[in-house]
Amino acid sequence: MKIFGVDPGSAHTGYGCIDASAGRHRILACGALSPPGRSAFPEKLRIIHDGLTALLDEHRPEAVAIEDLFYARNARSALKLGHVRGVVMLAAAEAGLQVFEYAPAEVKRAVVGYGRAEKQQVQQMVSLLLGLDPPPSRLDVTDALAVAVCHAHSMRPDTSGEQPVETRGAPRSWRRYRPPDTAGRRSEP
Amino acid sequence: MKIFGVDPGSAHTGYGCIDASAGRHRILACGALSPPGRSAFPEKLRIIHDGLTALLDEHRPEAVAIEDLFYARNARSALKLGHVRGVVMLAAAEAGLQVFEYAPAEVKRAVVGYGRAEKQQVQQMVSLLLGLDPPPSRLDVTDALAVAVCHAHSMRPDTSGEQPVETRGAPRSWRRYRPPDTAGRRSEP
Repeated sequence: MKIFGVDPGSAHTGYGCIDASAGRHRILACGALSPPGRSAFPEKLRIIHDGLTALLDEHRPEAVAIEDLFYARNARSALKLGHVRGVVMLAAAEAGLQVFEYAPAEVKRAVVGYGRAEKQQVQQMVSLLLGLDPPPSRLDVTDALAVAVCHAHSMRPDTSGEQPVETRGAPRSWRRYRPPDTAGRRSEP
Repeated sequence: MKIFGVDPGSAHTGYGCIDASAGRHRILACGALSPPGRSAFPEKLRIIHDGLTALLDEHRPEAVAIEDLFYARNARSALKLGHVRGVVMLAAAEAGLQVFEYAPAEVKRAVVGYGRAEKQQVQQMVSLLLGLDPPPSRLDVTDALAVAVCHAHSMRPDTSGEQPVETRGAPRSWRRYRPPDTAGRRSEP
């Protein structure tokens, strides 16, 4: 299953596409869309939207995963970030893809195993999981890959042999959670 | 000069296009884009974006005006509203149009002459200015028309005979402000 993770930002929007279909996570692409700083804000949105549209068309993932932000520092920065998330979601909808949102703590828990992990820990763990050496230097890129990995975990089939549990957003119960290091060992149903 | 005003909202996005080129304000179109309530949020964004794109293509305005919201009630609602504003700005950028933002108090001052006017006063004054009888029942429609009227006022040439003053956003000084009832009397440069 191909999953496209996005970490939105008007200066840098990180993205990462992974393949989680073989029981292991494999990286297909990652990077950041960085509109010129001098561009007007609507033009930055256009550059991010068009860049994502081209990437979704190129990689044809099955889902888009994005961090949900319940707790933005203030209303003004939340409003600005919302603009970028809006055009990210639009690009996904235009590509016919469902958008899955995960709280930052859920992403950290899925990747590092601890909801209050530092960004650098996420960076290291994502790089380890995906075999990236050296790790991507940009934290928005590793954050985008982390939310894609988080979605892969939330979609993982139960070991009882039931059908894959599709959750809209992250699983609310962590009884279904499998730590990352078992990823290579579980059997396909 | 054709101006397209927008009042963004995920349930209802009001819009209004006015012609302010003849010294008077004339309404060309107004209405609301209301995605089905059951739609997923990214799909609502797509419906609003595509609707605005079609309207901008039909009316070919010279500018898009939108209310700026410095003071959203909370970060969560600001984030959600930001998504809609993002796709509105994107539609404008894709049409090659500049986006002008005005604080709610600036819009009210430009239309009613009082920055803390009620929405119903804005509705009545906008309807009076544009000769709408009966007034549009939807407040998001009159709010969209109000921000278009506000932009028309901010672009009005100085009576000293100077070139029109193009402000990015509203004029910070109200010394340039001309009250609405002089609109029909000013001479073109």
